[in-house]
Amino acid sequence: MTHGHFTAGAPAPDLQTAQAAHRRIQSFVHRTPVITSASLDRLTGARLFFKCENLQRAGVFKTRGAFNAVYSLSDAEAARGVVTSSSGNQAAALSLAARTRGIPAYIAMPKIALKSKVAAVERYGGNIVWVESQGAVPTAEEYEATAAAIQARTGASPVHAYNDLRTIAGQATCALEFLEQQPALEVVLAPVGGGGLLAGTALATKCLRPGTDVVGCEPEMADDAQRSFRTGRIVRDFQPRTIADGLRTALGDLTYPLIARYADDVVTVTEAGIVSAMRLAWEVLKLVIEPSSAVPLAAVLEGKLAVAGRSVGVILSGGNADLDNLPWRP
Amino acid sequence: MTHGHFTAGAPAPDLQTAQAAHRRIQSFVHRTPVITSASLDRLTGARLFFKCENLQRAGVFKTRGAFNAVYSLSDAEAARGVVTSSSGNQAAALSLAARTRGIPAYIAMPKIALKSKVAAVERYGGNIVWVESQGAVPTAEEYEATAAAIQARTGASPVHAYNDLRTIAGQATCALEFLEQQPALEVVLAPVGGGGLLAGTALATKCLRPGTDVVGCEPEMADDAQRSFRTGRIVRDFQPRTIADGLRTALGDLTYPLIARYADDVVTVTEAGIVSAMRLAWEVLKLVIEPSSAVPLAAVLEGKLAVAGRSVGVILSGGNADLDNLPWRP
Repeated sequence: MTHGHFTAGAPAPDLQTAQAAHRRIQSFVHRTPVITSASLDRLTGARLFFKCENLQRAGVFKTRGAFNAVYSLSDAEAARGVVTSSSGNQAAALSLAARTRGIPAYIAMPKIALKSKVAAVERYGGNIVWVESQGAVPTAEEYEATAAAIQARTGASPVHAYNDLRTIAGQATCALEFLEQQPALEVVLAPVGGGGLLAGTALATKCLRPGTDVVGCEPEMADDAQRSFRTGRIVRDFQPRTIADGLRTALGDLTYPLIARYADDVVTVTEAGIVSAMRLAWEVLKLVIEPSSAVPLAAVLEGKLAVAGRSVGVILSGGNADLDNLPWRP
Repeated sequence: MTHGHFTAGAPAPDLQTAQAAHRRIQSFVHRTPVITSASLDRLTGARLFFKCENLQRAGVFKTRGAFNAVYSLSDAEAARGVVTSSSGNQAAALSLAARTRGIPAYIAMPKIALKSKVAAVERYGGNIVWVESQGAVPTAEEYEATAAAIQARTGASPVHAYNDLRTIAGQATCALEFLEQQPALEVVLAPVGGGGLLAGTALATKCLRPGTDVVGCEPEMADDAQRSFRTGRIVRDFQPRTIADGLRTALGDLTYPLIARYADDVVTVTEAGIVSAMRLAWEVLKLVIEPSSAVPLAAVLEGKLAVAGRSVGVILSGGNADLDNLPWRP
C-alpha cells in the first residue's frame, strides 16, 4: 500500500476535510461522552476532561477513520471491498465499517494476533488472511506482500490504519466533537503511534482554536515520534519495547508533516507510569482502557506537562484491553 | 436508626419529591451518560440503553441519595453532621456529600471492610468508627448500637442507605434523567438489594410513563425481594450467598411499599450469569461495573424478561469493583 506525500501532490487535509468527514460518519459512530473526575482533578491540580473513545464502536477511535475511508469510496470501488494490515484495532474497525456498507473487508493478520482481536474481526464479518512470515512477528514487508496479494486478487481498496488522508480526516472528527462538547480546552493530549489520531487531533484543534496546545504522548520505550518531532525527520530505526501495543509503529509520511506543522510537543512516559495510569482509569474513572490509551494520563501524572489550573482534554483512545492478562496482576 | 412507615404518618414520596431532589442535587452530581451497543443489541434482540451510574461521583448511584439527604438538612442539623452504617458504597457517597457541605460524616464500618472501600471513605474525609462485633461480620444490632452511640455523642443525623425517604427521592433522580435522555423506554431494569434504587426508579418511571415496565433484578441466592413482592410481606429471614455484595440486604419498610405499588415484577439471576454479564460489560461496553450492577444485564442475557424488539433501559448502578479480585480470574 503506497501513498503520495500530500506536500508533493494530494492536497493537505484541512478543517473542511475534517468537517466533511464528520458529516459523512456521524450517523455511524458514537458521539462519545466526555467525563470528569473531581478526584483526579484534586490529584493533578488540573481540570481534566476525558473524551471516551474507548466507548466508541469497536472500542476504539479508529472506527472514525475506517468509516470515513469506507464511505469515501465510490460504489464501484466499494463493491470490490477494502483491505488493511492489522493485528488489532484497525482490523475490527474496518471490518465493522465494511459490514455496515455491505462490502467485504480483507484483513492481513499475523498468526500471533490475540484470540480476542481475532474474535472481534470475525464478529464484525471481516475476512482474515493470515500473513505468512519467516519469524514469529511478520515484518512490514511480509504484511505488505500479503496485502498486495489480496489487492491483486480482489481489487479491494487499501485503507491504511494511519497513513491515509481519509483515515486522518476521520480521526480528526474526535477533536471536532471534543471542542463542541468542551469549548474551553487549553490543552489537548493524544497518544501517538503511527500518528493518525495525533495528526487529526492537531489539525482540527489548531484550525478551530489556535491558542489551544496539542501534545502527543508516547512511551519512552517507543519515543520515535518525539525524536521525529525534534529532529525534523521520521525516525524509523527503533525497537519498541512497550506494553502500549498500539503505539509501537513509526510515524507515516502523511501523519508526520501534520504533526510537525500543528502539534506543539511530544512527551514521553515510563512503562510503570502507563500501568499506574491505566489502573487509575479503571479504578477512579470506571473505564476499561487499553495500555496505549493510558499514555496521556500517565504524562499528566508524571508531571511531563504544565497542567496546574488548566483545562486539559485527554483522549482515551481505546478500550480493547485483554481482561485475562492485566498488567497489575500479581 | 428508626424510620416511620410512610403510610403511618410521613407523606409517601411522589414525583414532586423526586423532582425537588433533582433540583437540589443536580449541581453536585454527574448527569451520567447513556450508552448503547450494537453488539449487545444483536446478541439480545433488544434495543438496550445503559444508564452509567458507575460513572457517577464516588462510582455509584448512592451519591444521589446521599446528596439529597445532606442538602435536605437545616443548617443547624447539618452542623452536627450525618451518620450511617455501611461497609461500602453508602459510606463513600455520604462522606463525599458531607465533605461538600463542609460537615462531618460518621461512618460505622465493619473491620472486615475491603481496603479499597476504607480508602475511599478516607479520601472523602469520612470519620470511620469501627463496629465492635462478636463475630466476623457485625449483626444489624451491632451496627445499630455503633450508629446510635455516634448519634448520642454527636447529634449527627442518621442517613440510611436505602430506608430513608430522602435517600429514595435522591435515587429516583436517576430515572428522571434517564427518561429525559431516552424518553421512549418501554422497560427499565434496576438491581434490588435494600430497594432504594428500585423504589425510586419505579416511583419516578411510573409517575412519568405509566406504560413503561419497571422490573427489579436480584440474585437467585438473595431472592428476598422477589419473595417479598410475591407474598406481600417483607422477607427478612434469608442467608444471602451471592457475589453481588450490594444486594445482600432485605427490603426496608419504606422501600417495600413503593416497590409493591410501582414495580411490575422482580426477577432473579444465577451467580454464573452475574459473572458473565459483568465480564461482558467490561469487554463490550468497556465499563468497569461491580457484580451487583451486572444483575439486570444478566437478567436480559438469561432470558428472564421479554425484551425482543423492545427499548430496554438498564441501570448500571456502580463501578466499585475490586480490581485485585476479579471473579473470572483463573
